[in-house]
Amino acid sequence: MKPAHVTFRQLIARGELVRLAGAHSALGAVLAEQSGFDAIWSSSFEVSAARCLPDASVLTMTEYLEAASRMQKALSIPVVADCDTGYGNNLNVAHMVHEYEDAGITAACIEDKVYPKMNSFAEVQHSLLDTEAFARKLAVAKGAQRTDDFYLIARTEALISGLGVDEALERCNAYADAGADAVLVHSKARTEEQIVDFLDRWDGRCPVVVVPTTYPSWSAADAAKRGVSAVVYANQGLRATVKSLRETYQEIYRAGTSLAIEDEIASVSEIFALQNLDEWQALEN
Amino acid sequence: MKPAHVTFRQLIARGELVRLAGAHSALGAVLAEQSGFDAIWSSSFEVSAARCLPDASVLTMTEYLEAASRMQKALSIPVVADCDTGYGNNLNVAHMVHEYEDAGITAACIEDKVYPKMNSFAEVQHSLLDTEAFARKLAVAKGAQRTDDFYLIARTEALISGLGVDEALERCNAYADAGADAVLVHSKARTEEQIVDFLDRWDGRCPVVVVPTTYPSWSAADAAKRGVSAVVYANQGLRATVKSLRETYQEIYRAGTSLAIEDEIASVSEIFALQNLDEWQALEN
Amino acid sequence: MKPAHVTFRQLIARGELVRLAGAHSALGAVLAEQSGFDAIWSSSFEVSAARCLPDASVLTMTEYLEAASRMQKALSIPVVADCDTGYGNNLNVAHMVHEYEDAGITAACIEDKVYPKMNSFAEVQHSLLDTEAFARKLAVAKGAQRTDDFYLIARTEALISGLGVDEALERCNAYADAGADAVLVHSKARTEEQIVDFLDRWDGRCPVVVVPTTYPSWSAADAAKRGVSAVVYANQGLRATVKSLRETYQEIYRAGTSLAIEDEIASVSEIFALQNLDEWQALEN
Amino acid sequence: MKPAHVTFRQLIARGELVRLAGAHSALGAVLAEQSGFDAIWSSSFEVSAARCLPDASVLTMTEYLEAASRMQKALSIPVVADCDTGYGNNLNVAHMVHEYEDAGITAACIEDKVYPKMNSFAEVQHSLLDTEAFARKLAVAKGAQRTDDFYLIARTEALISGLGVDEALERCNAYADAGADAVLVHSKARTEEQIVDFLDRWDGRCPVVVVPTTYPSWSAADAAKRGVSAVVYANQGLRATVKSLRETYQEIYRAGTSLAIEDEIASVSEIFALQNLDEWQALEN
Repeated sequence: MKPAHVTFRQLIARGELVRLAGAHSALGAVLAEQSGFDAIWSSSFEVSAARCLPDASVLTMTEYLEAASRMQKALSIPVVADCDTGYGNNLNVAHMVHEYEDAGITAACIEDKVYPKMNSFAEVQHSLLDTEAFARKLAVAKGAQRTDDFYLIARTEALISGLGVDEALERCNAYADAGADAVLVHSKARTEEQIVDFLDRWDGRCPVVVVPTTYPSWSAADAAKRGVSAVVYANQGLRATVKSLRETYQEIYRAGTSLAIEDEIASVSEIFALQNLDEWQALEN
Repeated sequence: MKPAHVTFRQLIARGELVRLAGAHSALGAVLAEQSGFDAIWSSSFEVSAARCLPDASVLTMTEYLEAASRMQKALSIPVVADCDTGYGNNLNVAHMVHEYEDAGITAACIEDKVYPKMNSFAEVQHSLLDTEAFARKLAVAKGAQRTDDFYLIARTEALISGLGVDEALERCNAYADAGADAVLVHSKARTEEQIVDFLDRWDGRCPVVVVPTTYPSWSAADAAKRGVSAVVYANQGLRATVKSLRETYQEIYRAGTSLAIEDEIASVSEIFALQNLDEWQALEN
Repeated sequence: MKPAHVTFRQLIARGELVRLAGAHSALGAVLAEQSGFDAIWSSSFEVSAARCLPDASVLTMTEYLEAASRMQKALSIPVVADCDTGYGNNLNVAHMVHEYEDAGITAACIEDKVYPKMNSFAEVQHSLLDTEAFARKLAVAKGAQRTDDFYLIARTEALISGLGVDEALERCNAYADAGADAVLVHSKARTEEQIVDFLDRWDGRCPVVVVPTTYPSWSAADAAKRGVSAVVYANQGLRATVKSLRETYQEIYRAGTSLAIEDEIASVSEIFALQNLDEWQALEN
Repeated sequence: MKPAHVTFRQLIARGELVRLAGAHSALGAVLAEQSGFDAIWSSSFEVSAARCLPDASVLTMTEYLEAASRMQKALSIPVVADCDTGYGNNLNVAHMVHEYEDAGITAACIEDKVYPKMNSFAEVQHSLLDTEAFARKLAVAKGAQRTDDFYLIARTEALISGLGVDEALERCNAYADAGADAVLVHSKARTEEQIVDFLDRWDGRCPVVVVPTTYPSWSAADAAKRGVSAVVYANQGLRATVKSLRETYQEIYRAGTSLAIEDEIASVSEIFALQNLDEWQALEN
C-alpha cells in the first residue's frame, strides 16, 4: 500500500510552484492527489465544517490532528496541517510539533492571531499577537522539532486585520528571523493587488505561500511569475461537496428513488477502487 | 442549538414510510436532514470509504461510533448506526449497545455475517452465522439495552449469500422471536422481485427495512405499498461527493484557478450557515 | 451492568457533606466508589500526569473528556469534571457543556484563570480573567446546558493568586449571580485559615466546595461544621500510585523476579472481579 | 524532551536478557523505565482493566493502540504492543501493522487464539487458529511492514490450551518459518517445567520470550541461562496499583482526611518532576 510520502520540504526544494488542495477526509485528499495536486492543505475550515461546527478553535488539536493524520495515511504526497494559532501559548505549540511529527505530518502552518481564533473570512475584528510574541512562538516550535523534515510555515493575518502591507512585511521578516521555513500572507481582498505589492517588496529570503480564495482570477501561473512558491486552493472541494450533496439528497427525496441520478454519481466499483479493495481482498487468499 | 432528537422508535410508530439517507459526516447528515429525510444511516461503507479503507471490519467500533456520534450531535433526526456484525461475539455486541446508548445513538442495525465481514456488494462468498447463534446475539444485545428508546434492527444477508427467500424468512422470524425491533432484508439483485416475494410472505410481526441500492427503479411509494416500513438510500451521497470532488479538483488543477467553478459550488457564506456561525459568534458579545 | 448514576445535583440536595476522590482512570474511580466516596473528581492534574505531560492546558478537551467519560461509564456515582478554564472563550465553554452533557457527565467545574492555565501549585504568577468576563462565561455555560441535571461549579483562584478573601468573596458572589450552581474556593495555604474566613463571611446562597490538598489536617467533619458542602481529595490516589509503582518496579528489577512482592499486590482474580469478568463471560454461554 | 527511542530489535541484538515491565499508562511506563527496565509491555490485560472492562477483545484496536502510543511518546525505551490475535483476519493484521508503525511502535506481539479472544488466565477453553492459518497471518503481517525496525513476536497459546510442548514446538517452528522475529511461549503452570522443556528442545533459530506470571520463582537469571531472550513482568504494576489505591482511598474515607498517609505517598513535586514541568515552564520565559 502507500510508501513513505515525499515531504513538503522536498517539494519546495524542486523550485517549481507547489499546488495544494484543501481537504478534510482521506477520500477527498486522495482524489486531489489523483487530480495532480502536489500536497494537501488539511484545512481547519473544512474539518470544522465537516462537523457543522464553527472554524473558531472550538474543535481541539486532537481532532484537527486526527483529520490530518487520516489524510496523510492515505497519501503519497504531503499534508500541510493548518494549525490555526498553534492552539495556545508556547507550551501548546511545542506539544503541537511533537504530536504532529509523531503522527507523520511533515509540514504545518501557524498564524499570528490570538487563541481562540475566528475564521479569517468572518466579519469580526481579529486580534493579532504582538510580532515578538509570535516570533517567540515560532522559535519554540522550531526548537521542539525532532526531525529535519518538519517544515513550519508562519502565516500572518496582518492584511486580514486591515494592518496593511508594511505590517505584513515587518511581521514576515521577523518570522523568518525566528526560524520559519516559509511565510503565508493571507488576504480577503477581491483582487491580488495587496499580495503583489507584498511580493514586489519581499526580498525572497524564504518561500511565500498564498491562498487566492477571494481573488480567484489570479492564476497559478501569474502567482509563480511573481515569485510565489506555493498556492493553496483551500476550500473549493468542501464547497463543491455541499452543492453536490444538497442536490443529490433533494432529488432522491423528491423522486422517492435514486434512479434519475445513478448515471451522475460515481459507481460502487469506483468507491471500491478508492478503498483499494482488490489489494485488501488478496490478503485473505 | 440542537434539541433532543426524535427517536427512530417514534418515527416508526407514526406508521408512515421512514426514509433514511446514508452519510458519513455531520455535514452530509445535516444536508440530508435539510432535504427532508427522516433519519440518517451511518453507513459503514461510507465511513470506511471516507478513510480510503475497505468496508471489511478493518475500521474499529471506536471509529464507527465516533462517526455516528458526530452526526447525531448535529441532527434533530435520529441516526441509525450500521454496526456490521456487532463487532465480534456476544460480549462485543453487549459492549456495543452500551457504548452506542451512552453516545446518544437510539437505533442500530447488526447483520448475520461472520466477523470480520466483507461489504455485501464485493464479489466474495459471505459466511453467515448460524440462525441460532445470531438470534442469541440479538437477545444479548436487547438484554444489554438500558433505555427504552434503543431500537435494534436485525439484518439478514441470506439473499446476499444466495440462500433464497425461504432462508431469509426463517431467519427474520427467528430474529423477531429473539427480540429484534425490526428486520432488514438486504439484496444485491437488479430488481425488487426477491424483496417483494419476501414481503408477500412476511406476516408483518415487525417492521421491514430495505436498501434499494441495486434496484433503484423500485420507488419509495412502491415499497410503502408493499408494506415496507423504512427505506435506506445508503451511499448515493458518497458517490455524488466522489464525482463532484474529482471534477472540481481536476478543473482547478487544469486551469490553475478556481475561477470557472466559483458559481457552481457553494459559497463561503453557505458554509458559515451550516456551521451556525452567527449563533456561535453571538456568544462572545 | 451499571445503572444510570445518581447525579451530583441529587447528592448535594441530600444536605450532607459530599466527599469526592480524585482519579484519572475507570479503575481508580471504581476503587474510590468501592471505598465509600460519593463522587469522583476527574482531575486535570491526574489525567495529565498519567500522560507525563504538564497540567497546563496542553492536553485537549477531547482528552480530558475521554478520561471523564471512561470513568463515568464504570460508575454508579457521578463524575465531576475538572474542566480548567473551560478551554478558551465563551464559544469554547458552550461547546464544552454540549460535549460533556452528550457524554453523560452531569457536573463540571471551571475556574477563573486565563487560558492556557498552569497548575495551581506551580510556582508562577497565575493570571485571572476579569470577574465580569468569567461571570459572562458562566452565564454562557448555563445557557448552553440542555438537561436539568447538569451542575456547574465556579472555581475561583483568587486565593491561589494572592488576591485575598475579599476578592474571593466578591468573585464568588458574582459567579453565583451569573448562575453557577456552586462555588469552589481553592487555596494553597498550609492551613485552613483563609478558607474558614471565607466561609464565615459567605452567606450560604449556594454550596461551597473545598480541596484541602495543602491543609490536610482540616478534616471532613471540621469542614462540614463550617458549612462546606463538598470536599475533594484531589490527587492522593495518583500520588499513592506513583509510590507503589516505583517500589514495585524497582523490587522486580532488583530481584529479577516478582516472587517477593506477590503477597503484597492484588491477585489476578481481584483484577478479574474489577473487570466484572464473570458477568461478561456469562454472555457467551 | 524525549529523543528517538532505541528499538526492540536493537535491544535483542545486544545478546543480553531483555527485561520488560507491563504498563498501561505513560506514567507507569516511565516509572518502569526509571527503575531500569529495557522495554515496556503494553499489556491488554492492564489496558482493559484500567477501563474496568474484560480482557476479551472488547476494547478495540483503536483503544489499545492509543494506550501503546501514549506510552511510547513518553519513553526512550521501546514499547512492545500486546496485540492479542491481531484483531481479526489477515486484513485486520495488515491494517494493525500499518497503524502501529505509523504511530511509532517498533514491536508487537500477536497470538494464535481465535478472535475474539479471552484472557489466558480465565477459566475457559481457548480456541486456537490452525497452525497454517496463523502462520499465514504472520506472513501477511511481515509483508505489511514498511520499516526495517518493526519486530513481530508470535505468541503461542498451545500450553495455555493444554496442547503440550510438542504442539508448542511445532507451532513455534511454523511461525518462525513464516517470518516471525521471535516467539513467545505462554504458560499458566505454577512452575517453569514446561517452559524449560520447550527451551531444551528449541533449536535457537529465533529468540524466545517468556511471561513468568504464574511461576515467579523462576528468576530472570535462571531464564537467561536456559536461553530465554526476553522476560515480561506483565501485570504486577497494575496489581500493585490496585492494592495501593484501595488502601489509600479507604484510609482517606475512614479518617476524613489524608493526613495520615501524606508521608506514604509521592509528593506533588515528585509528580511535577514526572511531568517535566520545569522544562515545559521554561518555554514561556
